Amino acid sequence: MKEISVELGQRSYPIYIGEGLLASRELFANTINTSQVMIVSNTEVAPLYMQQLLQSLPELAPQTCILPDGESYKNLTTLNNIITQLLENKFGRNSVLIALGGGVVGDITGFAAACYQRGINFIQIPTTLLAQVDSSVGGKTAVNHELGKNMVGAFHQPVAVFSDTQVLKTLPDRELIAGLAEVIKYGIIRDLEFFTWLEENIKKLLKRDVDCLQFAIERSCINKAEIVANDETEQEQRALLNFGHTFAHAIETGMNYQGWLHGEAVGLGMLMAAEMSYREGGILKEELDRISNILSVAGLPMTLPTQLANSGMRELMSVDKKAKDGKLVLVLLKGIGEAIVTNQFDENKLGLTLAQFSSNAGLN
Amino acid sequence: MKEISVELGQRSYPIYIGEGLLASRELFANTINTSQVMIVSNTEVAPLYMQQLLQSLPELAPQTCILPDGESYKNLTTLNNIITQLLENKFGRNSVLIALGGGVVGDITGFAAACYQRGINFIQIPTTLLAQVDSSVGGKTAVNHELGKNMVGAFHQPVAVFSDTQVLKTLPDRELIAGLAEVIKYGIIRDLEFFTWLEENIKKLLKRDVDCLQFAIERSCINKAEIVANDETEQEQRALLNFGHTFAHAIETGMNYQGWLHGEAVGLGMLMAAEMSYREGGILKEELDRISNILSVAGLPMTLPTQLANSGMRELMSVDKKAKDGKLVLVLLKGIGEAIVTNQFDENKLGLTLAQFSSNAGLN
Repeated sequence: MKEISVELGQRSYPIYIGEGLLASRELFANTINTSQVMIVSNTEVAPLYMQQLLQSLPELAPQTCILPDGESYKNLTTLNNIITQLLENKFGRNSVLIALGGGVVGDITGFAAACYQRGINFIQIPTTLLAQVDSSVGGKTAVNHELGKNMVGAFHQPVAVFSDTQVLKTLPDRELIAGLAEVIKYGIIRDLEFFTWLEENIKKLLKRDVDCLQFAIERSCINKAEIVANDETEQEQRALLNFGHTFAHAIETGMNYQGWLHGEAVGLGMLMAAEMSYREGGILKEELDRISNILSVAGLPMTLPTQLANSGMRELMSVDKKAKDGKLVLVLLKGIGEAIVTNQFDENKLGLTLAQFSSNAGLN
Repeated sequence: MKEISVELGQRSYPIYIGEGLLASRELFANTINTSQVMIVSNTEVAPLYMQQLLQSLPELAPQTCILPDGESYKNLTTLNNIITQLLENKFGRNSVLIALGGGVVGDITGFAAACYQRGINFIQIPTTLLAQVDSSVGGKTAVNHELGKNMVGAFHQPVAVFSDTQVLKTLPDRELIAGLAEVIKYGIIRDLEFFTWLEENIKKLLKRDVDCLQFAIERSCINKAEIVANDETEQEQRALLNFGHTFAHAIETGMNYQGWLHGEAVGLGMLMAAEMSYREGGILKEELDRISNILSVAGLPMTLPTQLANSGMRELMSVDKKAKDGKLVLVLLKGIGEAIVTNQFDENKLGLTLAQFSSNAGLN
């Protein structure tokens, strides 16, 4: 087992990464110091792992709260239902919530913990690669509003993250690949050595080699933990994590969040951001090709879906949450392993980048 | 104008107290550094003060959001409506909310600011004495759940508090008196000198003497600011502010939050807590009489309502949010100006205290 610390002063916490952590009674016993525990999961994940988790919490008799599966339930109504169950069971300020699931379960459980009685503790047990390397680390919690994703939320750090590589064995291929997009992102934006390692090991990762997966998760979490420790509430550096995301959100919005996984949109978004970086002179053609190549080998989408060929990607990008005073902010590269946040870019070059991806839309 | 600083490191903020602050364009201009401003108020307060406030924000053209009046609207549905209006108007992370109203408006506006896009700035303009000396200071924000008050919320500090003594002129007598209960509380729990001043000036306060009101608000805010600075998230010392509140919440719950104002319940709750402190040997009979006397002169209720005579006050107290591991926690006095938080008390003496107040219920 590996242990990484997210250094946030009094809010510091460990990320445990290892094979079979769900069965580690000792680790849970050392983490939980209350008898009021509720596990929040969903109808997909609970049948696979809830029993195993319950067996690791003997004598605690936790409540369980099983949500419907899907992003469409990540809203204030579901939040209210979680709060109701907590109150019906007289959970106090010393309670602990456990999020057992992917990003949706983690986000809403984290937000419930953030606002129940103004804040109780929670533990993340991410069950997708994407959640293990991204959403479970860093304390961003939220629910969606009908007018925008993640518009109601809080920064609320977990007390621990348990990333069990064993649960990845039941993960569908597409979700594994979507998770790899965020893994590759850490290499591109701030860790050239890791990027090079990924180029050499991407096929092993696709075959779910346990040691490779564990290393990739660990290195991703180390990168994210460093960024979060420096900038907990996204005033500056944390925005680097949005590399590819402004393009990705435009894709997701244009598709009404149907059809593509978030990681898939991020994969293509990173390719578009790399192309834009190349046009801006930030990276060489050779670097662009390396990025394009690893995304392609990973099996991530390389072209826009047909329906977005002429759909006004530029307008869709403008509504991004990260826009400041109406001016679009992009994360662009100065090399593999070095990214910057900027609103100083050539609008024509952005137009050319978008036109290029529109012209080959649908050709995969 | 007086200025008090709430010292919370990066989250420090000023409380301005003075006559006519609502008209102070300069103060608002110095506080607000964005063009996206929304004022949240309610149907009672907006007709009285919205125009005046808007005139103090020239060129900003703030959005206004007028809520129905009353505690029953302090819920997630109303929160969602505020969020909708923010999103419809494309408010970004650099927006500012202004709460113009009493505690209900302040609590829900503060919580909206706490969770909109994971946190934006907000300004408190409390329009009741109670809000000026209590809820607007310290960053407690929340909405109610059908199973409990303030069960969904956050600690989120305002960027400034504007306490305009002029708005107290339109405050109904009953609300003024209810506010005085919390003012008197600060004297009782940690400021003997202020308590003595209050004994001498309580009648002037009831006549709304401007200088006296300003001093009482200032001294109350100084006391609260000191406590909050030492214990922002109520781990220890901040719990002293709950003096009288465990009794008060039992009264309010027993009456289904109908008929009595919160401050009125706190007034009687403090008398009951003082009686309990006397029975525990914490204060002398003479000190109990001083507390009883000032509450009586202020016009606060001295006896339980008839319907609570045999209503199981003890059970109602047990469901208090501050109960820890099932053991009731009380704030008791060691003298006027000195309070402690304890679960070490004689259950029989609590029974006798409750019996005493049950026996004279309805006799005012």
